[in-house]
Amino acid sequence: MKKRVAVLRGDGIGKEVTDAAISVLEAIGRRFHHEFEWVYGLLGGEAIDTVGQPLPDETIRICEESDAIILGAVGGPKWDNHPSHLRPEKGLLQIRKHFELSVNLRPVQAFKSLLSVSPLKEEVAEGVDMMIVRELTGGLYFGEPSFHDNDKAVDTLVYGRDEIERVVVHAFELAKQRRNKVTSVDKANVLESSKLWRKIVEEVAARYPEVEYDHMLVDAAAMKLITYPSAFDVIVTENMFGDILSDEASVITGSLGMLPSASLRVDGFGLYEPIHGSAPDIAGKNIANPIGAILSTAMMLRSSFSMLEEANTLETAVKNVLEAGFCTSEFKNIGRQILSTTEMTEKIISEI
Amino acid sequence: MKKRVAVLRGDGIGKEVTDAAISVLEAIGRRFHHEFEWVYGLLGGEAIDTVGQPLPDETIRICEESDAIILGAVGGPKWDNHPSHLRPEKGLLQIRKHFELSVNLRPVQAFKSLLSVSPLKEEVAEGVDMMIVRELTGGLYFGEPSFHDNDKAVDTLVYGRDEIERVVVHAFELAKQRRNKVTSVDKANVLESSKLWRKIVEEVAARYPEVEYDHMLVDAAAMKLITYPSAFDVIVTENMFGDILSDEASVITGSLGMLPSASLRVDGFGLYEPIHGSAPDIAGKNIANPIGAILSTAMMLRSSFSMLEEANTLETAVKNVLEAGFCTSEFKNIGRQILSTTEMTEKIISEI
Ligand SMILES: CC(C)[C@H](C(=O)O)[C@@H](O)C(=O)O
Ligand SMILES: CC(C)[C@H](C(=O)O)[C@@H](O)C(=O)O
Repeated sequence: MKKRVAVLRGDGIGKEVTDAAISVLEAIGRRFHHEFEWVYGLLGGEAIDTVGQPLPDETIRICEESDAIILGAVGGPKWDNHPSHLRPEKGLLQIRKHFELSVNLRPVQAFKSLLSVSPLKEEVAEGVDMMIVRELTGGLYFGEPSFHDNDKAVDTLVYGRDEIERVVVHAFELAKQRRNKVTSVDKANVLESSKLWRKIVEEVAARYPEVEYDHMLVDAAAMKLITYPSAFDVIVTENMFGDILSDEASVITGSLGMLPSASLRVDGFGLYEPIHGSAPDIAGKNIANPIGAILSTAMMLRSSFSMLEEANTLETAVKNVLEAGFCTSEFKNIGRQILSTTEMTEKIISEI
Repeated sequence: MKKRVAVLRGDGIGKEVTDAAISVLEAIGRRFHHEFEWVYGLLGGEAIDTVGQPLPDETIRICEESDAIILGAVGGPKWDNHPSHLRPEKGLLQIRKHFELSVNLRPVQAFKSLLSVSPLKEEVAEGVDMMIVRELTGGLYFGEPSFHDNDKAVDTLVYGRDEIERVVVHAFELAKQRRNKVTSVDKANVLESSKLWRKIVEEVAARYPEVEYDHMLVDAAAMKLITYPSAFDVIVTENMFGDILSDEASVITGSLGMLPSASLRVDGFGLYEPIHGSAPDIAGKNIANPIGAILSTAMMLRSSFSMLEEANTLETAVKNVLEAGFCTSEFKNIGRQILSTTEMTEKIISEI
């Protein structure tokens, strides 16, 4: 197959981890006889510096003409004091909205060989394997009215039935391919939006009798993610709760730099990025962990290109390298062999 | 001194832990020559069953005529399917709003002798000593419009300058009595309300040059609470974020049943309750941990009655009993001597 991929490397280590991911995809292409065409676009801080906008029109065009988007990371202290329409994150919010990337997938999986670096006790983190499904283009992030003056501020949490239903359906579909369990997180004892959310979850659940489900309040979920994280299979929740809970969950296995994400449109088009930030302090040093970016492209192979064997091959390659005792520099002092970004990339390629 | 205290025992174990707290306060009264008058009122599920409202008028009257309120816990599966105006939690929201209990204090402290029960590695949980200050009567919980029908739902996050300022000032005042550090948590890269929040924090901070402060995004805070919880001193945040983060933080030391809370009006009047729920499954068995309720009354002595020595005496008594190796039944298999609710209460009293 031939696929065109928009590559938005972004800022800081976004560049080097994206380069790593591309080399690995090239190896997948060679092995499985696919041809990837890479089209580069600007996003975030660099885009602000170069063309004065975090999401340039040219970048939108490039993405529109592509089959998927891969993204490194955006942001840095340099742009932190810009007004909000000129901040790197604004580019992220705009691209999500423009391409209707309404379903955000954040898998969190414990690598057994790295449990010693988890902040949680090993027996608590062991066996964690969850998928957080976050609604990404609605809720408090986008509702109107939304303003502040010197004395008052208003944000609005709005959800329409369709916005809720599509993400909930996605979660139930995923559960069928996993352990058949969905936990829907809301605050239905307080919020009206959560009451509609819960109602729609009930309706969708009725269409998936084989999938077990429950409702959990967001405060209880924030607790259980720490006390008993391995109990979760698929978690589905609205935008703001998903932002908080997915970041909370990302630290429980101690391998933040390894975690991928996908942001999907209903037709399967998607944007793929590691969950880590641009880490300006270590940028350009060839020490960043490329695994988050690499595993994100495995999600792309699976979700946007239906290349299941290719995705599995890539994920197995990563697992093999980790199990062989290799890691990158954030895991010091745990008796493993530390590789640079490019060495780690080569090791993974050698397993493909 | 003579103080009248409204006692809302609530549901489930709320009753027995409140009784425990009252016995301990009686002992404090004997030792320091204070007289406490207890006036009992209904709240929550029992109130719904008895008078058809979660917060009866009679209870409001009792509280209005008292110097402080102590509360056990409300709720239970029995009332879970009631319409929202007839749910126990509604009583909680109403009492907060009616008495303008706008500042919620949630201290989280690691007891060194109990670190083995924390889900976090002992070296991560060790030394945790933070105070979470949550705005409690504004934001998404109370803003209008707020409604849902079958197709759409809206909640509104509203904050006025005064609502933000009073809770931020409270946080800075507390920091002065602690380690002089405030972390303000918001989502200023997305929410308008957070931008006003951040601005007001800056203004207040300028009046407290001796207090160090920083801003943290809520998703980053959710991570750092797990990776490096001992770095926090005072955290201040808005209602919804505070709900999630304070519950998340409550599990990091493994001693949920020991954690107190205070909900204060600006003039010092307040409501004091343990953070745990009504735990219907263990209610009436004399095995619940009364320490959360007991430490809540220490907060009452300090914040509403300015009885500092009394509060310290009570807290020291609890600490001594824990350090002597006693605990309640939730800490099985850690080689400590397990006491019933009443035995634990007697042990604490014997230290006063
Ligand atoms: C940068 C920010 C707007 C964004 C969000 O809150 O959605 C980020 O935290 C994320 O989770 O991707
Ligand atoms: C019961 C509920 C309304 C309440 C809240 O969210 O404020 C509770 O979770 C709490 O934190 O006291």
